[in-house]
Amino acid sequence: METTPSRRDTIDVRVREVGPRDGLQMIAQFFPTAEKLAWIRAEADAGVREIEVASLVPAKVAPQFVDAAEVIEGARKIEGLEVMALVPNLRGAERAVELGVDRINFVMSVSRTHNLKNVRREREESLADFKAIAELLRTIPSARRPALVGGLSSAMGCAYEGEIAEADVCLYARELAALGANEILIADTVGHANPKRVKRLFHAVQGEIGTLPLGAHFHDTRGLGLANVVAALDCGVRLFDASLAGLGGCQFVPAATGNIVMDDLCFLLDSMGLKTGVDLMKLIAVREIVARNLRDTPLFGAVARAGLPTHYVSPAGSFEPAR
Amino acid sequence: METTPSRRDTIDVRVREVGPRDGLQMIAQFFPTAEKLAWIRAEADAGVREIEVASLVPAKVAPQFVDAAEVIEGARKIEGLEVMALVPNLRGAERAVELGVDRINFVMSVSRTHNLKNVRREREESLADFKAIAELLRTIPSARRPALVGGLSSAMGCAYEGEIAEADVCLYARELAALGANEILIADTVGHANPKRVKRLFHAVQGEIGTLPLGAHFHDTRGLGLANVVAALDCGVRLFDASLAGLGGCQFVPAATGNIVMDDLCFLLDSMGLKTGVDLMKLIAVREIVARNLRDTPLFGAVARAGLPTHYVSPAGSFEPAR
Repeated sequence: METTPSRRDTIDVRVREVGPRDGLQMIAQFFPTAEKLAWIRAEADAGVREIEVASLVPAKVAPQFVDAAEVIEGARKIEGLEVMALVPNLRGAERAVELGVDRINFVMSVSRTHNLKNVRREREESLADFKAIAELLRTIPSARRPALVGGLSSAMGCAYEGEIAEADVCLYARELAALGANEILIADTVGHANPKRVKRLFHAVQGEIGTLPLGAHFHDTRGLGLANVVAALDCGVRLFDASLAGLGGCQFVPAATGNIVMDDLCFLLDSMGLKTGVDLMKLIAVREIVARNLRDTPLFGAVARAGLPTHYVSPAGSFEPAR
Repeated sequence: METTPSRRDTIDVRVREVGPRDGLQMIAQFFPTAEKLAWIRAEADAGVREIEVASLVPAKVAPQFVDAAEVIEGARKIEGLEVMALVPNLRGAERAVELGVDRINFVMSVSRTHNLKNVRREREESLADFKAIAELLRTIPSARRPALVGGLSSAMGCAYEGEIAEADVCLYARELAALGANEILIADTVGHANPKRVKRLFHAVQGEIGTLPLGAHFHDTRGLGLANVVAALDCGVRLFDASLAGLGGCQFVPAATGNIVMDDLCFLLDSMGLKTGVDLMKLIAVREIVARNLRDTPLFGAVARAGLPTHYVSPAGSFEPAR
């Protein structure tokens, strides 16, 4: 796969589609492999440069990702696309390396209880896994070495424990950075965040990790997703996960909305004059691929419902609004 | 009606329910008078101190408000509630005075085209109306004189004209303030606003009107409603209109969401430690009254879907979350 770092120079904010992974992980209905690839291709064609395409967990844990190898193989052929996969442990990272992903999203939970339930490990064991992964990656020539994300889930609250101490988030962010993370990703897994909290926490984490890229993974569970994005933008955060049509849910809150809506996020950023590289009209058209495969799953998104404002001119110059 | 200014001293942000007016104005189905009053009473009981209860326009223009006199009469009996009504012209203001409302919401559009279509007046004619209303109010003893809102609709964009010049918003805000407005209300009538624009415009308007209270009336048409609230909070705005369950639509965008969701707004503010005086659990329970009367109207609201976060403790101390 050709990497095209020059393309990233032309954008102000990185938006990363996580729908094929986070969006699908709670959905029992299998999304056919060819359709996953059609979705990924169409988003890449709309200008999305980074997509988390699968979770490298055992197929018996997550049958939705039984085709992860095939999806990654197909996604790698898309020019200019950075392919990310989630891994929970060293075994997953080894597969990710074999499959040639561009970016490994290692996720541990700041909540001890959530980490135990989710990956059956103490947080210190997860850190040890991360260390082993970082060491594995250092054995790979830098030209084809995947980037490594240190993801911290339940960082703004936990469905088991409730409040999560900011000191713990800072501690694990610092540890992951020291062990070799190329990016720290703060995840509000169940929608506990609020803009005030976001500002405080992200500033605190920035104090720990310096200039290492810091990303935000917000869920819209309680409607504050884009409000939290604005708070993070104020902190200088320039990397956001989202999923098309807000796909993705939460095992703890079955009726709730999922990840922040990719299409609304791109509209928000564009309206603020921040370049994402995404053609919003093309992106919205991709919803059809999701809709035809998930007929019983509610799709979210205000811009898709309402259309663009009258005479909208993309302030970021990212696209030509359809008339 | 007893005014209880002391209650307002205990809050950080004024939240004003506009559902019985803005929420209902596009809905053809008549919401029975007794049920409107049940809704208003229940919200007041949940701690909402200000409600826009009706629009004083001719009944043939808006049959939904044929019972405005009765609704205002009933609402005035609710202790501690400030009753607001929308008026488009002097005749409406005269009725508002006769009916004894606490606050008159005079609305004109910054967009010339929208003002012509909406109230069949040039903007200068609307200003002349406002002047006459302000003069009428000055003839009333101050103890029972209604407060006067200078509302500027289509202030962030217009469904006919598209972009609206900030200089025009500033001009009309200054004029309304000079003519005697007790509050300026900036309305993003069709969801054109974005956080960057909000900050710039609200700062500019503050420069024109000094310390006069400045309120924000946002619609969630394109999903940015609460993000815009955060931007306005950053400007020091402490007064927001909203409607329960996001009721209210837009004649131009029939499928779109309406006003920002009152319940989500109250959650946002509470989570940020800002006191609204509203008991969120009681407020959410009021949705049932709306739901039983508008069975075919979609209701919005993420907190109502998802519930509160695990172990949520109201940072503003406004209520006791149900366990």
